[in-house]
Amino acid sequence: MLLEEIKNYKIYLASQSPRRRELLAGMGFDFEVMPTHVKEVHPEGCTPAQLVEHLSRLKLSAVKLEDFPENALFIACDTVVVLDDEVLEKPENEEDAFRMLHSLSGREHVVMSGVTVKTRRYCATRHSETRVRFRAFSDEELWYYIRHYRPFDKAGAYGIQEWIGYVGMEGMDGSFYNVMGLPTDVVWDMLQNAVKE
Amino acid sequence: MLLEEIKNYKIYLASQSPRRRELLAGMGFDFEVMPTHVKEVHPEGCTPAQLVEHLSRLKLSAVKLEDFPENALFIACDTVVVLDDEVLEKPENEEDAFRMLHSLSGREHVVMSGVTVKTRRYCATRHSETRVRFRAFSDEELWYYIRHYRPFDKAGAYGIQEWIGYVGMEGMDGSFYNVMGLPTDVVWDMLQNAVKE
Repeated sequence: MLLEEIKNYKIYLASQSPRRRELLAGMGFDFEVMPTHVKEVHPEGCTPAQLVEHLSRLKLSAVKLEDFPENALFIACDTVVVLDDEVLEKPENEEDAFRMLHSLSGREHVVMSGVTVKTRRYCATRHSETRVRFRAFSDEELWYYIRHYRPFDKAGAYGIQEWIGYVGMEGMDGSFYNVMGLPTDVVWDMLQNAVKE
Repeated sequence: MLLEEIKNYKIYLASQSPRRRELLAGMGFDFEVMPTHVKEVHPEGCTPAQLVEHLSRLKLSAVKLEDFPENALFIACDTVVVLDDEVLEKPENEEDAFRMLHSLSGREHVVMSGVTVKTRRYCATRHSETRVRFRAFSDEELWYYIRHYRPFDKAGAYGIQEWIGYVGMEGMDGSFYNVMGLPTDVVWDMLQNAVKE
């Protein structure tokens, strides 16, 4: 069982997101948070899936393996919201958040995460995508959410585990935890492969 | 906006479930928990949707409106797990939980909730359904979950917001919060109708 086998490794999560920490802890893993300071450069002409895979790899690109224990295992993840062909990342301010949420209102969008897992013997990247349908929101509802929840650290300007997710999500197809910021099922599967190497 | 209009009402939630309380609070409502002690008799020959609608109505059947303030608004909900034609409710013990989870392993099932909302002028019942796909679990994984999480108060013997949901849910179609025990989007919509009456 993975939770036993993984005890031979020291896990590092390359993310500052409290949601990712909460989810990885809920999966039963002990880990350390390792902040990364990588400039997120978006390559031209790639699909959203290629983009999030690239960004998750990028977060581990600055890691010097020799600075870490032999049994280190790194996890990095990047999540974006895709509406038609536009990629929504974190909003810059209230108006930007309103613009993003207004564009998602009454529509279906896709949440896309890329995950990279790396040890001295294993390195792999995968992605997960979830379709989310929001009902139409009034401007008053959007401002209520923005002012009470201040979603400036969240791709697409919303947290599915917050008020707007409770009252506005009409349905989804795919992984809920991917929308929260970490596709836990994919991470579990990748860690099972990593410990076998 | 509903959160303003609902202040004219005193909300009672007819449920002991901590998940339902958490979700209703997360929607921004103030409410009181009102335990109900109704014997859950299953009528013969009804569909799962009819069953959960019936059970949610039943929870409010013993409420004497004259014992409550004029502006009382009652919410009741009942959730079951449906696999093929079998309805799974709460497991009776560890073996029963194992049997249920083993039957859900590597399969798709349906989570069905019925909701009844009632005031002196309004009474309605609706249901919500979500398809959930679990990957195949090893016996060791199922026993790990049962022994660590003791899911005896949960229909189908699992909580989607717990370890087994993180590591085992391959995908879903519908409302995540319905699987947690309260279809928050349906409740929001019903309350909007209730306050208009």
